[in-house]
Amino acid sequence: MLIHNISQLLTMQGGPQRGRELGHLGMVEKGAVLMRGETIEAVGLEEDLLSRYADEPRLDALGKAVLPGFVDPHTHLVWAGDRAVEFEMRLEGHTYLEILAAGGGIISTVEATREADFDSLYAQTRARARTMLRHGTTTAEAKTGYGLDSTSELLQLQVLHKLDKEGPLEIVPTFLPAHAIAPEYKTDPDAYVRQICHKIIPAALDWWKKNAAEKPLPFVDVFCETGAFDLEQSRQILTTARDLGFPLKIHADEFDNLGGASLAAELGAASADHLVKTSSADIKALAASSTVAVALPCTPFGLADPHYTPAKEILDAGGLLALATDCNPGTAWCESMQFVIALACRALKLTPAQALAAATINSAAAIQRDDRIGSIEPGKQADMILLNINDYRHLGYRFGDNLVNTVIKRGRIIPVL
Amino acid sequence: MLIHNISQLLTMQGGPQRGRELGHLGMVEKGAVLMRGETIEAVGLEEDLLSRYADEPRLDALGKAVLPGFVDPHTHLVWAGDRAVEFEMRLEGHTYLEILAAGGGIISTVEATREADFDSLYAQTRARARTMLRHGTTTAEAKTGYGLDSTSELLQLQVLHKLDKEGPLEIVPTFLPAHAIAPEYKTDPDAYVRQICHKIIPAALDWWKKNAAEKPLPFVDVFCETGAFDLEQSRQILTTARDLGFPLKIHADEFDNLGGASLAAELGAASADHLVKTSSADIKALAASSTVAVALPCTPFGLADPHYTPAKEILDAGGLLALATDCNPGTAWCESMQFVIALACRALKLTPAQALAAATINSAAAIQRDDRIGSIEPGKQADMILLNINDYRHLGYRFGDNLVNTVIKRGRIIPVL
Repeated sequence: MLIHNISQLLTMQGGPQRGRELGHLGMVEKGAVLMRGETIEAVGLEEDLLSRYADEPRLDALGKAVLPGFVDPHTHLVWAGDRAVEFEMRLEGHTYLEILAAGGGIISTVEATREADFDSLYAQTRARARTMLRHGTTTAEAKTGYGLDSTSELLQLQVLHKLDKEGPLEIVPTFLPAHAIAPEYKTDPDAYVRQICHKIIPAALDWWKKNAAEKPLPFVDVFCETGAFDLEQSRQILTTARDLGFPLKIHADEFDNLGGASLAAELGAASADHLVKTSSADIKALAASSTVAVALPCTPFGLADPHYTPAKEILDAGGLLALATDCNPGTAWCESMQFVIALACRALKLTPAQALAAATINSAAAIQRDDRIGSIEPGKQADMILLNINDYRHLGYRFGDNLVNTVIKRGRIIPVL
Repeated sequence: MLIHNISQLLTMQGGPQRGRELGHLGMVEKGAVLMRGETIEAVGLEEDLLSRYADEPRLDALGKAVLPGFVDPHTHLVWAGDRAVEFEMRLEGHTYLEILAAGGGIISTVEATREADFDSLYAQTRARARTMLRHGTTTAEAKTGYGLDSTSELLQLQVLHKLDKEGPLEIVPTFLPAHAIAPEYKTDPDAYVRQICHKIIPAALDWWKKNAAEKPLPFVDVFCETGAFDLEQSRQILTTARDLGFPLKIHADEFDNLGGASLAAELGAASADHLVKTSSADIKALAASSTVAVALPCTPFGLADPHYTPAKEILDAGGLLALATDCNPGTAWCESMQFVIALACRALKLTPAQALAAATINSAAAIQRDDRIGSIEPGKQADMILLNINDYRHLGYRFGDNLVNTVIKRGRIIPVL
């Protein structure tokens, strides 16, 4: 299949973009793409490809822009229920304790998720996966973390694994029993840390080897934050996981700086995420490492908090910056990487070109899949989106509408509008 | 047609909602709506309506929420071209003068709009009208103002009139030759004010009487702001229009307080819009009048400006508050009232219920159509939306996705998803 009549072909070729290099679009004007099966076979000038592959079936982009499918490297996709009442209570001026007393907060999602059976949890998660796909995301990382015990955490992993097999959205799973202190261990968090290290993570390893051995191991992640896991607990969990062979991620510095970003760099984590209260020293440590800094601007937006990730400082230090939705029921129920891009242009002062690279090739690096996705290059998986517009800058410039016309996932063409 | 199986029927009945009264949803649980032709005939309990109208054809809402179609009372819908390059230049750190030198700013849209022929301007405007409709807006105010001379301003009015006749989006036009000083009058703004008063507005009156006499006269609006029209010029234009029979609107206090809000109250304008730098005295003057305060949160969001309309102060003073997109190519290319609602919950601290009332019955009042639209009541026009969700709070709570399933405009059923 030869995709032609493209106004702007944004290839994002050349690998992850570090520091101030961020924003190289690899743009081919009057470009074309040849895909065969699930793979991109050739990228070049339309003129050349039309003559070299004259008999190939064609997909006419009608003069619109084409770019790699968005990669969303931080989502909490799998949960049951919602927290709309909590959202309203917050706006009515109720305190956090009143909200907790009315059954709000993360534990309310844990309870709803534990109560849901597999089919219900699958259906609710699948609806969000479809919404992501409709908005141009072709691969999403997705975390467990609303179970906080072996049974329920494994059920969430199972939902994610099945969803990935069903497709078309590709799911890269992350195991996150260390999302919050389980309610059963409220008075003894260290006991929950031991439970995670000695029972829950090993159980996930067993489950994965039995049920999903053909796929790479999930990431293991920890919420390193005041009220969740401190730096020492985070280190214990992450080193346990690393020693079992899991690749690592970390939630760091969303509200407080506990040193999670430097820990991520030290342990060679794939990414450190949130990074709102990150110190200059931590930013330098990240920049000197291969750990990707993932900004989640929907979260402060969702909370109406004016503090965002210091993206420019991360770029000036030479860091690798990526963007994600953080899609979750508490602070940011948002499936759209298009909205993340529009928000990042304003709250993080990225240009549209920088935001697009951070949402494709760099976010692929944040989940260690940049060898296979995140750019349009020969040999890579055929994951692309055709926009309704002929200029990439409209992503960022415009907001509130879905500008994706067609999604291509592993060579499969999915019309959106 | 009987709409039944509704989880939450938000009628917004009882007229515009003043001050702290804002947020009365008029909710009927297990409610139903009967529409005949273009009109709502009955609203009540499903049980009652199903037995009273047993033979009526049915529309099954499948357990979702139903509310009045959104009314967007402030848009600059009709323009040609875009300003995506200007958006990028701003983010790259270029100054306003550099952007002007590169052909940016409002005058670049004036030039593109003057150059466009009727069909091109119509097609570009219609695409945005369709996007509004897909996001649940059933009536939109739409301003001229990118012509700044008789010929081009009348062409824009003609586009809006034809678009309204075509439907399904209902257009309420506003005549805004006083959007900026026309480039020809840069050195003599008073001469442009005379031109507006003696030539352009009278020409609009003639055109309307000849071509659209069956419809109410458009609003006349003025951009009362430093660099556009001062208070005295604004008064001249608005009183001229009022004396010819036009209803009035005003852009006031977006960047500076020139007294436009009090002028609107004094002249009995339908609305005063923007209201970011409005003084407490002006807020009190507005609250003591029937002029609706229209907040446009997409504009500061679009500009990444942290200053928003003091909505709570307006409500505390007893004002009538409405919400609009301000859809325009310079500061806020956004067609979605759903995004406005989500933003208003965060930046203006409205509850979802307040934001919904401000986006329906109160925004109908801002265009003086609350006798006919903005609520689900017997005798009113059958303008409704069926959501994809069963709880209205998800509008506000969630962002980035379109939660509208079906739009009903004058009884005509339009599936969205």
